[in-house]
Amino acid sequence: MEYRFEITKKSAKTKARVGKLHTPHGVINTPAFLPIGTQGTVKAMTMRDIDEIGAEILLCNTYHLFLRPGHELIREAGGLHKFINWDKPILTDSGGFQVFSLSQMRKVTDEGVEFTSHVDGSKHFLSPEKVLEIQTAFGSDIMMPLDECVGYPCKKKEAEEAVKRTTRWAKRSKSEILNTKSETISKSQIQNSKLFGIVQGSTYKDLRKRSAEEIAALDFPGYAIGGLSVGEPQAEMFEMLDVVTDILPEKAPRHLMGVGYASDILGAVKLGADLFDCVIPTRLARHGSFLTYEGKISIRLNKFEKDFTPIDPDCDCYACRNFTRAYIRHLFWAREITAMHLLTVHNLRFYMRMMAKVRADI
Amino acid sequence: MEYRFEITKKSAKTKARVGKLHTPHGVINTPAFLPIGTQGTVKAMTMRDIDEIGAEILLCNTYHLFLRPGHELIREAGGLHKFINWDKPILTDSGGFQVFSLSQMRKVTDEGVEFTSHVDGSKHFLSPEKVLEIQTAFGSDIMMPLDECVGYPCKKKEAEEAVKRTTRWAKRSKSEILNTKSETISKSQIQNSKLFGIVQGSTYKDLRKRSAEEIAALDFPGYAIGGLSVGEPQAEMFEMLDVVTDILPEKAPRHLMGVGYASDILGAVKLGADLFDCVIPTRLARHGSFLTYEGKISIRLNKFEKDFTPIDPDCDCYACRNFTRAYIRHLFWAREITAMHLLTVHNLRFYMRMMAKVRADI
Repeated sequence: MEYRFEITKKSAKTKARVGKLHTPHGVINTPAFLPIGTQGTVKAMTMRDIDEIGAEILLCNTYHLFLRPGHELIREAGGLHKFINWDKPILTDSGGFQVFSLSQMRKVTDEGVEFTSHVDGSKHFLSPEKVLEIQTAFGSDIMMPLDECVGYPCKKKEAEEAVKRTTRWAKRSKSEILNTKSETISKSQIQNSKLFGIVQGSTYKDLRKRSAEEIAALDFPGYAIGGLSVGEPQAEMFEMLDVVTDILPEKAPRHLMGVGYASDILGAVKLGADLFDCVIPTRLARHGSFLTYEGKISIRLNKFEKDFTPIDPDCDCYACRNFTRAYIRHLFWAREITAMHLLTVHNLRFYMRMMAKVRADI
Repeated sequence: MEYRFEITKKSAKTKARVGKLHTPHGVINTPAFLPIGTQGTVKAMTMRDIDEIGAEILLCNTYHLFLRPGHELIREAGGLHKFINWDKPILTDSGGFQVFSLSQMRKVTDEGVEFTSHVDGSKHFLSPEKVLEIQTAFGSDIMMPLDECVGYPCKKKEAEEAVKRTTRWAKRSKSEILNTKSETISKSQIQNSKLFGIVQGSTYKDLRKRSAEEIAALDFPGYAIGGLSVGEPQAEMFEMLDVVTDILPEKAPRHLMGVGYASDILGAVKLGADLFDCVIPTRLARHGSFLTYEGKISIRLNKFEKDFTPIDPDCDCYACRNFTRAYIRHLFWAREITAMHLLTVHNLRFYMRMMAKVRADI
């Protein structure tokens, strides 16, 4: 199947749109939420569970899989889909966000980023070309170019430098795609994965505008909006997104990276975002919280002690169809892994149902 | 369905037998292995997983469930089957083994055992009558009377006292079944659960003989052999079992509690044991080992790094049908819960397939 993004419906009142993103491994109905399989599995889940909650695409982290088990091993396994046994689409990030999060453990030059592994302290170097080679070895359906992420708050000068470098690296990435010099991957292999462009610019409207224009000018088949949901108020995030989606070409999908809570996603869809990924539903589950439209609720609460109803009576997930709040609460207090699993199943299914409703409501 | 044990085949050469144990929640093909759901779940598994590996009965621990969430809560939930959502048979132990394992934290008198909770340090008292009341609140298909367990090695005098007390407590349990004085459970409720007798006697042949005779004289519908696999050599365990199964009535099922490794079970079946339970397959899985007839193998080993074959090519479990040694090894080193889950699925399915082979080979 060819890569293609098709917009099937547009909102009359907002910038929201419903679409179908066709990839070699299947179609993704957008707006879509991508569960995160950082190290090649969604935490506390099997691939069957991910399939059952209705996920149409998985996000995996290049940084983690590059360090362990390594992209060469994944290549030998027949690619990431085969290694993890997931035959639907996979999007991999560039590792940029993780590397920049290492703060004291990395050194950035125009050439790339040198960093120290969190796994074993070994030194590594990632360049725009290297991250594409890695993601090509994975066989990702969608890959991301190396970008420079800044924290929040960020001084304007620093944010501007990051925007400039992100554009320079995007150009190098684009040229690597067109004419790779890699000895381990071929041109057709690298072109089989679709490379998105990433927009940065911190919380400065003019920088967001400039970044969106520069990246859009490079004509990518899809775009990611990075550096948001890093601590800024929601209103500011929406403001930045609004500026960016006014500039990015309408025909291409837009991935708002690392976002977010239900209310973030509901607002961002109206501003024209199509793809979302976030560790919130899975991380909160492992910490004992289930999600609702109103926010998170801890299963540990005393009021659930003898609550023999499901987490959500309207939910069709395995946890809600089979177990009570009292039971899952008990398992949680008893430190059973099964509690983390059941809450993860529910939280991800909640996000999937939310996205289906979002699509229906546009 | 009525409780009934039916022997369908006997070995010509050994004391092994194939049978069907009929209970109100279904039939158990024996010899059978019972996965352990200590706190109301098998660790790292859901009830669906347990069903899929082919388990026909689950063992739950009275001690743990009494302390948390408590038998009154389980009663309110509609019983243990409903609380944990498992509609096949459940066997519960008496809590004796766990309480006696507390060593410094418990005080035994003829009346019962006072002990300190490992959960919150609170004081509790278990008597033969109390453990039956608890298990009746659970609605267990098979329940166990309070017994006195000794360690290994154990002085003969101490082992003898434990045998005497176990018999006295068995008599009290039997009389409680026939005419309960409990204010919270009825006679028909307590009789709905079938009470097994427990044989003790440490590693002394004469004590095992005496215990088996005294307990058998009380005419229970089934028997458990306790206090074995607590550190003694396998040969000694087999010797004790041999003495006991010569005495116990042939028509009743025999549960060799807490046993064991594959070779323990294979040997014990030949000596006439019908039911087995053990934490080995699940605990070893969480520590990264998979089981074979030859013993355990660590998935962590370097030789599995690029081993793209299943844990066991002949196994039909979810883990073996879908994932490679290299992938599960990677997940284990990456500390993913999913690795524990997949190894648990395999190890329990290995035990289930082993028991099916045992039954077919008799």
